[in-house]
Amino acid sequence: MPDTTLDPTLDPARRSWVPGAATPGADFPLQNLPFGVFRRARTHEAPRVGVAIGDAILDVTACAALGVLDDDGDALDAARACDAPALNPLMARGPAARRALRRALSVLLGDELPAGRQALVAQALVPQAEAELFLPAQVGDYTDFYASVHHATNVGSMFRPDQPLLPNYKWVPIGYHGRASSVVVSGTPVLRPSGQRKGPDEPAPTVGPSRSLDYELELGCFVGQGNPLGTPIPLAEAEAHGFGVVLLNDWSARDLQAWEYQPLGPFLAKSFATTVSPWVVTLEALAPFRAPLAPRAPGDPAPLPYLDTPDDRARGGLALTLQVTLRTAAMRAAGLPPFVVSTGSALDLYWSFAQMVAHHASNGCNLRPGDLLGSGTVSGPVPESRGCLLERTWRGAKPLALPGGEVRRFLEDGDEVVFTAWAERPGAVRIGLGRCAGVVVPRDAAG
Amino acid sequence: MPDTTLDPTLDPARRSWVPGAATPGADFPLQNLPFGVFRRARTHEAPRVGVAIGDAILDVTACAALGVLDDDGDALDAARACDAPALNPLMARGPAARRALRRALSVLLGDELPAGRQALVAQALVPQAEAELFLPAQVGDYTDFYASVHHATNVGSMFRPDQPLLPNYKWVPIGYHGRASSVVVSGTPVLRPSGQRKGPDEPAPTVGPSRSLDYELELGCFVGQGNPLGTPIPLAEAEAHGFGVVLLNDWSARDLQAWEYQPLGPFLAKSFATTVSPWVVTLEALAPFRAPLAPRAPGDPAPLPYLDTPDDRARGGLALTLQVTLRTAAMRAAGLPPFVVSTGSALDLYWSFAQMVAHHASNGCNLRPGDLLGSGTVSGPVPESRGCLLERTWRGAKPLALPGGEVRRFLEDGDEVVFTAWAERPGAVRIGLGRCAGVVVPRDAAG
Repeated sequence: MPDTTLDPTLDPARRSWVPGAATPGADFPLQNLPFGVFRRARTHEAPRVGVAIGDAILDVTACAALGVLDDDGDALDAARACDAPALNPLMARGPAARRALRRALSVLLGDELPAGRQALVAQALVPQAEAELFLPAQVGDYTDFYASVHHATNVGSMFRPDQPLLPNYKWVPIGYHGRASSVVVSGTPVLRPSGQRKGPDEPAPTVGPSRSLDYELELGCFVGQGNPLGTPIPLAEAEAHGFGVVLLNDWSARDLQAWEYQPLGPFLAKSFATTVSPWVVTLEALAPFRAPLAPRAPGDPAPLPYLDTPDDRARGGLALTLQVTLRTAAMRAAGLPPFVVSTGSALDLYWSFAQMVAHHASNGCNLRPGDLLGSGTVSGPVPESRGCLLERTWRGAKPLALPGGEVRRFLEDGDEVVFTAWAERPGAVRIGLGRCAGVVVPRDAAG
Repeated sequence: MPDTTLDPTLDPARRSWVPGAATPGADFPLQNLPFGVFRRARTHEAPRVGVAIGDAILDVTACAALGVLDDDGDALDAARACDAPALNPLMARGPAARRALRRALSVLLGDELPAGRQALVAQALVPQAEAELFLPAQVGDYTDFYASVHHATNVGSMFRPDQPLLPNYKWVPIGYHGRASSVVVSGTPVLRPSGQRKGPDEPAPTVGPSRSLDYELELGCFVGQGNPLGTPIPLAEAEAHGFGVVLLNDWSARDLQAWEYQPLGPFLAKSFATTVSPWVVTLEALAPFRAPLAPRAPGDPAPLPYLDTPDDRARGGLALTLQVTLRTAAMRAAGLPPFVVSTGSALDLYWSFAQMVAHHASNGCNLRPGDLLGSGTVSGPVPESRGCLLERTWRGAKPLALPGGEVRRFLEDGDEVVFTAWAERPGAVRIGLGRCAGVVVPRDAAG
């Protein structure tokens, strides 16, 4: 973990010469430098790794070709892993390679760079408005955790009023395997799934489009370097296996889920689409925003030793604010802006990503570069911080009143859900995670 | 689906000239021709696709290089997909390419082939005893179903005596996502996992090696050609998306499972290892052994329309006999043979693989070439046909008495579990699936 006070890539006094990077409130200032995969839109260029900076993308492969990385062997070596249609090769090289590349790119993009050199590097910039973005990594396995105690308690109290939180919750970072094939990048339309659903009073299930389609606001963490099968990852080493974070929408068909999930967990209720934001914000960029998770409630057990280190207690969390907006087709037609449905904090999670990684590998399970860990729905203690409609409308009992007069219990066709997240604190430059967006499309509208 | 009576690759009168292929009881006669991935042991050769025949492996890439496929363009084209370290490229080409290759290889390996030509083809044979076998496919997603009503009822009656079978079971082919990264090929040692376990009378969980390690006898089905996200697969087309079957051991740590699995399903109890047999037996080779699944019990609902076709009712099942043997370290030391723990039938499943595929894709989930579907534990109606120790010893209440005087409730370190399976019927040549084997290794013995 880089020292915030010594890492020049985090120096709040530094600015980039790239347009939009120094705009107050920008997601991608010089201090962020998230990685993604792009190509120029409407071309047949090979997708490749880029870094978001202001309103542009720095083409890492083009930088290498221009020779501007030639005086930094480590960075040049890492840049060679960026001529790929996914971040997996860079992820596999581990944190040292990623940091070397980050440092070199930070120099190239800082306004201390001589003007002539800036003109050279500018040849490797592509405007974001002219780029097509791809899924940032080939996801070998997608694991979804359940790390928000507020979410688990809310959902549990709807389905098991006598025992909202199961006895294992405060001991085990509960997680389950998700579907990797249907992880898609932000902007991909989300087709309303069909499936079996059965109301409690119906004699038999029927098949048809989901009537209670929901989003789930999550943070995703991509695995960087992996571990061999049979070799657990100690908590103290867990962050060295992380690469960075994205926003993740674990779209959920609640009616399919309620009928199918016993006894083995969610399956078709989730596997039709999981959306991630395109820019992976690295652990280095997040270093100024590390903080302890919200304290455990009095009487809660301490984490078992394999899930407990002083460092994880002190700074296992990410001080990220997460926000959900909803905009219906009617709101778009009326020119109404997106409606803020909820605003929460990743510090309200009960388990840190490092704890999730250490737990995941504790049985010897091998994590691989590009594996994706979802936090589970991020909900906080108040209604306005609940990260899915199931909780936000309390299973439809408290519908959302939208500007323009519509109400929502669950998602309707044409609804656009957008997640954003940002981190800010005195003495650091604000960074953002970009957008994780999707529009719900009816099945018969699919091509 | 090939017509058994017309497909010359299934003609029971034909024999192969390769040693071992015509031995009665052999797994790999001319009529089988399963695909796998191999290289010569103790070499650095590139792993590549081969076909098991008798005691040998036919190197498909070498056949193409020898020119013996030159008079069959379709087969030669399919053979080019075999110069790869996994079956995925061949799988992606779909059933027509696979069948073309199968027909051409059957001609090359049949004893009608002129002797001079046999000598040429023999240059492409590698003895199985001199080969190293690999995982046959790169598994994008591994889905484990729960398709044995006997298994579900037995396990349910231990954990929920008042409601052994949940209300959804007879409507929904229950399945869940498994861990793809830890799928390994037969012969890979299985490290006993550690994890949290808590007895019902213990105040808090403890962490340590699993005390109730189990196997699960399953059939696995590899997906061939995939479907695009958002496009369901009708049941009538489901088998065109299958490639072939293997034996699958879904190793399970029952104590970890009992503590962790609520509410989202098994996780670390399974993700430490899943073993598959190396030879993928194609749907073409299984054509003579198609049969209806065991009839549903009186009063059971008919499958919903999307899970019901006349063809699936008539021949959705695979008439495969499945057997589990156990051999402990003490038995090996004493020269005792493996002990047959159970023998069952894949016809005792409640759902066919075609139904599993159609259900899996019914919400638009995309399956990809190389995806692996497990049947779930294959158990039958009698104790001797129960496919895991949890059921076979009824949670340890009825321990197995082994030759040599040992007893087993669950697996001990040093135990070797071997699955085999075969199909035979009058008028067809017996075929086998080979072996799915693993030895349990204590954690401290791991390198």
